[in-house]
Amino acid sequence: MCKSLPMGELGKLLANVRSKNFNLVVIGLGRIGLPLAVSFALAGIKTIGVDVNEELVKLVNEGKAPFYEEGLDEALKNVISNGYLIAIKGFNNIIIQGDVFIVTVGTPLTEDVYPDYTQLVSVLKSLARTEVRGKMIIIKSTVAPGTLENVVRPLLETSGLKAGIDFGLAVVPERIVEGKALYEIKMLPEIVGGINEISSQIAAELFKHLNPGKKIIITKPIVAELAKLFTNVYRYVNFALANEFALIAEQYGADAREIIRVANEDYPRGGIPMPGFTGGPCLSKDGYYLLQKNIFPEFIMMAWRVNEYLPQYVANKVIEAIRKLGLNIYSTTIGVLGLAYKKDIDDVRYSPAKKLVNYLERLGIKVLVHDPYVKGTTPLEHVLASSQVLIIAVNHSQFTNLENVINNHQNILLVYDVWGIINREKLRSNVKYLALGAPYE
Amino acid sequence: MCKSLPMGELGKLLANVRSKNFNLVVIGLGRIGLPLAVSFALAGIKTIGVDVNEELVKLVNEGKAPFYEEGLDEALKNVISNGYLIAIKGFNNIIIQGDVFIVTVGTPLTEDVYPDYTQLVSVLKSLARTEVRGKMIIIKSTVAPGTLENVVRPLLETSGLKAGIDFGLAVVPERIVEGKALYEIKMLPEIVGGINEISSQIAAELFKHLNPGKKIIITKPIVAELAKLFTNVYRYVNFALANEFALIAEQYGADAREIIRVANEDYPRGGIPMPGFTGGPCLSKDGYYLLQKNIFPEFIMMAWRVNEYLPQYVANKVIEAIRKLGLNIYSTTIGVLGLAYKKDIDDVRYSPAKKLVNYLERLGIKVLVHDPYVKGTTPLEHVLASSQVLIIAVNHSQFTNLENVINNHQNILLVYDVWGIINREKLRSNVKYLALGAPYE
Repeated sequence: MCKSLPMGELGKLLANVRSKNFNLVVIGLGRIGLPLAVSFALAGIKTIGVDVNEELVKLVNEGKAPFYEEGLDEALKNVISNGYLIAIKGFNNIIIQGDVFIVTVGTPLTEDVYPDYTQLVSVLKSLARTEVRGKMIIIKSTVAPGTLENVVRPLLETSGLKAGIDFGLAVVPERIVEGKALYEIKMLPEIVGGINEISSQIAAELFKHLNPGKKIIITKPIVAELAKLFTNVYRYVNFALANEFALIAEQYGADAREIIRVANEDYPRGGIPMPGFTGGPCLSKDGYYLLQKNIFPEFIMMAWRVNEYLPQYVANKVIEAIRKLGLNIYSTTIGVLGLAYKKDIDDVRYSPAKKLVNYLERLGIKVLVHDPYVKGTTPLEHVLASSQVLIIAVNHSQFTNLENVINNHQNILLVYDVWGIINREKLRSNVKYLALGAPYE
Repeated sequence: MCKSLPMGELGKLLANVRSKNFNLVVIGLGRIGLPLAVSFALAGIKTIGVDVNEELVKLVNEGKAPFYEEGLDEALKNVISNGYLIAIKGFNNIIIQGDVFIVTVGTPLTEDVYPDYTQLVSVLKSLARTEVRGKMIIIKSTVAPGTLENVVRPLLETSGLKAGIDFGLAVVPERIVEGKALYEIKMLPEIVGGINEISSQIAAELFKHLNPGKKIIITKPIVAELAKLFTNVYRYVNFALANEFALIAEQYGADAREIIRVANEDYPRGGIPMPGFTGGPCLSKDGYYLLQKNIFPEFIMMAWRVNEYLPQYVANKVIEAIRKLGLNIYSTTIGVLGLAYKKDIDDVRYSPAKKLVNYLERLGIKVLVHDPYVKGTTPLEHVLASSQVLIIAVNHSQFTNLENVINNHQNILLVYDVWGIINREKLRSNVKYLALGAPYE
């Protein structure tokens, strides 16, 4: 307690942040951290990116984006060459130059489907050992409700310093969509849950550098934590419901996409989403962060069950259809188009398409996968030339207007379209076409 | 089969409908049927309304609306006095004058929570006995998917006539919101699921009389049936999710409404609804119509469980709070404001507020209920003067800005606000305030 500094220390940091007279440290250079570090560097802030992955740090310092993100390659080259961004491996002496720290390390689920805070805890322990007096720490990693107060704060206070007095502390959840990270980092409102007022003010000033017109919503940490999780669970449950509608429509020999279009058309209480594979590192796992104190876990579990079951459902429908064509499934090659967890990105974490491929392969079925965004997958032409069956597993832009290409490959006898992006009218009449949520005639 | 008429018979009806040279019969003068009959009569169509309820028929013929619906009273007087609408009890000879029949009878749930088609079947049998050759029959009652093909059609064809040839047949689901029926009957798109093309055309021409600019979506009966159910289940599940969020927020001592506001504010993937009682004859029951062939009934059941449990949850929270105030619950009077199933209407069918009242009363607790829309409830002033506890159970417009009125009644010690419409800052400091989804401090 006696170590407490006057509020003036953080007041000084606030002034320095406002006048861009500070150094930023972004911890974790993954799909959240790297675009964020690049965005701040682009905004003229001296930024240090930290990661434990040596190969990644090397790539970043060479100005090479380690994953696909619209505009990232060029922006990264730019900020590396003008010196506004440097990447370092792990915590080293350079860290001491940091005034504001943003933590973006991954918080995946363990095998027990519990939140895995290993990386977060390790980073916080390192920060506590560093001199954080007069500095600001911002958590962007997705965390369970109450984590800022119950985990982050006590860990950092093992330093003997007090959050909100000796150092600033806030949770500012990340809500961007992968693929549009640079755009959304600039444009999305930022929810700032500071441990106290000065902490919120510093975080607010920081994020305004990304865009002076950026909306900053200042609230309590618990509200910021829950707002992020509610948003993702809301989306995940709605996609699960759309998928359930697809399965129901199939039972009635009706086309779910047509039904949903009709239901939504000019209707003030419409807005039902379309069915399709739903997954990825945010939507798939965020519900689990709410299960700790949840009275009705079945609701979130049910959405999870519907969405996660879908790849298996598609696989079984395809196998059934292959049998109906009189083919032996073990003499058949299935080409899968798309491996990422969603449209126009290269991220395969928690990907339903990958789950589909794994399931088919474990059954001993020959599968060829093409994804234009995912390195190491089979070229499209090879997949098309070698498969009797094609599954459109991701609605990448490249997979629209594939009808003619499919028609030109006489070897293709069956198309299963998870996304309803193929126009069946344009397909050869001897190609059997099935789609998720559409009748199996 | 030999009885089949040339298509010309229905073609003639189509021409007559187009030129307003026909009589309309609306069967069922409830909350759907009566506003619909009045709307057609207002549009200058000679309309006969049929109902089994003698009292209701009498009221209608006197130009008195038997329930509240914005603008209905005046419109009804108008069309009764100019003769465009008459009401009759049951099927009688006047029926023969009808050219187009719209069936709007109720399809509630039985005690077994199965669809109850008693009224629908009775009406269809009567119609089959009538001469329906060259006539058009439209089903507006909510029905399970496949009902037009598997129930309505075979029942009507017991007449020996063929649907689509001898008579027209379509399902045109009702999607209006109670309270705004007259406006929405004019403005909403109409989903027309005709048994064949001529049936759809006739129905389309009919509904265009309500508003020449009305959007008509022509589709298959199964699509029309499912579109209506998907819409209501989508809404019902989303409200259940909002209610689950409220319960989760309470566990964390956070305010669900604040979290949801923060999450939605200027966020492109927002739209989370606010928590509150969810019920009524459409939302509560429509999910059950989808359970017949449903692979995952748990999803709809779970939404149902959350929404239907809520009144009991509120009752238990109120009882707990009364105990904490040191009062005996059996010496306490609970005033409940609102009994309708939603805002600004008088319909109490499937009402969560009613469920709350029933639950409290069955526990032997004294309850006084005021609802400005529901006849026979206790006057507001009496409820306020006699209650120690107030529950705002419905967010009627009349219940906003109640703070001063509550403050003036020193007897009121506790307010439970299901809708978060009371500003706690404006309440006397010795009134304990609780709200659904808000911390219990």
